[in-house]
Amino acid sequence: MELKEAVEGRRSCRAFSPEEIGKDKIDRIISACTWAPSPLNLQPWEFIVITDPAVKTAVRAEAEKAKEAVAAADGPSWAAKYPTAFLEQAPVLVAVLYNPAKGGLGGYFNSPHGALMAASAGIQNMALAAAEMGLATVWFTFFDPQALGRVLKVPENLELAGVLPLGRPADELKPPPRKPALVFDQTYGG
Amino acid sequence: MELKEAVEGRRSCRAFSPEEIGKDKIDRIISACTWAPSPLNLQPWEFIVITDPAVKTAVRAEAEKAKEAVAAADGPSWAAKYPTAFLEQAPVLVAVLYNPAKGGLGGYFNSPHGALMAASAGIQNMALAAAEMGLATVWFTFFDPQALGRVLKVPENLELAGVLPLGRPADELKPPPRKPALVFDQTYGG
Repeated sequence: MELKEAVEGRRSCRAFSPEEIGKDKIDRIISACTWAPSPLNLQPWEFIVITDPAVKTAVRAEAEKAKEAVAAADGPSWAAKYPTAFLEQAPVLVAVLYNPAKGGLGGYFNSPHGALMAASAGIQNMALAAAEMGLATVWFTFFDPQALGRVLKVPENLELAGVLPLGRPADELKPPPRKPALVFDQTYGG
Repeated sequence: MELKEAVEGRRSCRAFSPEEIGKDKIDRIISACTWAPSPLNLQPWEFIVITDPAVKTAVRAEAEKAKEAVAAADGPSWAAKYPTAFLEQAPVLVAVLYNPAKGGLGGYFNSPHGALMAASAGIQNMALAAAEMGLATVWFTFFDPQALGRVLKVPENLELAGVLPLGRPADELKPPPRKPALVFDQTYGG
C-alpha cells in the first residue's frame, strides 16, 4: 500500500470482527514500531500481546473504572457512554510500554518525555502497518495507567503508552473531519 | 512509495543539502501530520515554518545553550560535540507545537499527555511523508522548550513537540541497528 493511502486511510476503530489475525501479522505490526526514531536510538518500547479472554476482560474493567472516575469528577457526561466492548471483541490487544528513563537528554532541560514521544511515533507506525493489512486499531488510553499496569504486571520502571486492539473492522469507517493546518511564518503569529 | 519502504527507509538526518524545497512539499508534509489520530479528534497541532536565516540562527543558539546546560549538569561529555550546524543549513525548519489542553480525558486519571502523544504521531507521519519525497528530517528536541518558545514567540498555552529541519540529505544514511522487539504474552514477563 502507498504511504499516502495508509496515512489518510488509517481509522480509529471501536468495533471489530472476531476473526483471528495471524501471529505473522502481529509480528509485522510490532516490528513497524521498532523502526520509529528514539532519543539516542534507545528504543524504549516493549510489548504485551493479549489474546486471553480473561485478561481482555480485566483490561475492559479498567476502562470502565476510568469512565467512573470521569463521572465522579463531574467530567463530560458522554464519557459514561463510551463503548468498551471492543476490548473484549478484538482478537488481539497489544499493550505498548516504554521506559521513561530511555528518554535521552531532555531531562537536563525541562523536556523529560522523549521516551513517550518515541513510543507514540512507534504506535503511529503500528497503526499504519495495520491499515496496510486491512486491519484497524485504536490508540486506547482511557484507563488509569498505574491501575492497568498492575493488571498487566508492568514493572515499576515501565509505563503504558496505550493499548492497541487489532482486528478487522466490523464496519466501514469514515474519516473524521480534518481542520486546515494552522501554519505560521518564521514565528508564531507571523 | 510503499508504506514499508517509508517506515524502514526513514532516517534521522543531521546534514542537509542547501537546495530549497518547494512550498507544495512543505504543505504535504504538514498535511500528513493532520491525519494522525488525536484524543477526541481535537487535532492539537500548530506549525511554524522557518526559512529566515536569522531565526534559524536563533534556534541553533538555543541548541548550543542546551549543550551548555548538559555540560554544566555533568551530563555525558559527548553531548558537547553534538553538531548543530544543520539547523542553519537545512532550507526549512518546521516547529511543531501542540496545545496540552487538547489532550482528551487523560487528565482525569493520571495520563495528561494525550496532546503530546498525538503531536508525536503526527511528527512520525511528517517524517514518513518527507522520506517518500526523497527528503529527510530529524526530530530535534535538544533545546529548552520554554526558552525556544520565547524565541519563536510561542504563546503560553502551546508547547513545542520538536523542530523538524527539512531538506535533501547531504549524505547517504545508514539505518541504525534495531534491537529485536521485547514481546511478552498476556502479561509482562509472560
